[in-house]
Amino acid sequence: MPMQHHPETEEEKVLAANLAFYEALRCLDLARMEAVWLQEDWVRCLHPGWELLLGWEEVQRSWAAIFDSTGHMLISISRPLVQIVGGTAWVSCLEDVTTAQRDGISSALIETTNIFVRHRGRWLLVHRHTTPLPRKTDSPHDQILQ
Amino acid sequence: MPMQHHPETEEEKVLAANLAFYEALRCLDLARMEAVWLQEDWVRCLHPGWELLLGWEEVQRSWAAIFDSTGHMLISISRPLVQIVGGTAWVSCLEDVTTAQRDGISSALIETTNIFVRHRGRWLLVHRHTTPLPRKTDSPHDQILQ
Repeated sequence: MPMQHHPETEEEKVLAANLAFYEALRCLDLARMEAVWLQEDWVRCLHPGWELLLGWEEVQRSWAAIFDSTGHMLISISRPLVQIVGGTAWVSCLEDVTTAQRDGISSALIETTNIFVRHRGRWLLVHRHTTPLPRKTDSPHDQILQ
Repeated sequence: MPMQHHPETEEEKVLAANLAFYEALRCLDLARMEAVWLQEDWVRCLHPGWELLLGWEEVQRSWAAIFDSTGHMLISISRPLVQIVGGTAWVSCLEDVTTAQRDGISSALIETTNIFVRHRGRWLLVHRHTTPLPRKTDSPHDQILQ
């Protein structure tokens, strides 16, 4: 889902940064994923089902491993909520993710907090926290990004 | 575990605010819990196993319900990691929680992100995101607060 216009407000810029993260994820594109993170030793990431990763080196390595083992990824997000306080912002959103990996297809609904900081005029991801939720058969999330 | 000294650095102040949250939780004390949050309509909270709560009104009501249904709570935290960017800070920590409720005793290890903002000189909780982790029998967390 390409952006239809140049983001204007800070909230739109944060949402665009959040969307760029999901585009990198959807495309399994490590270079794009590297571009959306602040590459510092204090960034952190909790992937679904993983232990907390500390520092850009661990986070970068994890994305390389995930992309290497994933054949295809369908991802949609819904209910993005933005809060900005000074040069920090966080987005709460629901991810609906289906991945094809070597050992089969898996699907999950994930509650996420992504924290961004404004760095040289760009909003960059510095912290990601995910929680897989129980599946509900009566609540489809069909706003597929691709 | 009362503070042994007055916190001096901003990082110590954030850790003290984080500890005050856990003290309120441990004591099932709604007034203390209310005092550690910023009471705004944009705060959010993901309790373990719940859906995301939006706004202080929902969050406050949830704590009242949790405290009302919980007879006793043992909670320890480990590995607190603080990051401060301007007037925003977040703490990653592991919670080891055992609760006695009407329907029995439950125990969980929880990976947590607590976000605080500095408001009139005090660090107040504005966002809480929890993820229950699978239990590992070989990794005890025994830094009990009470």
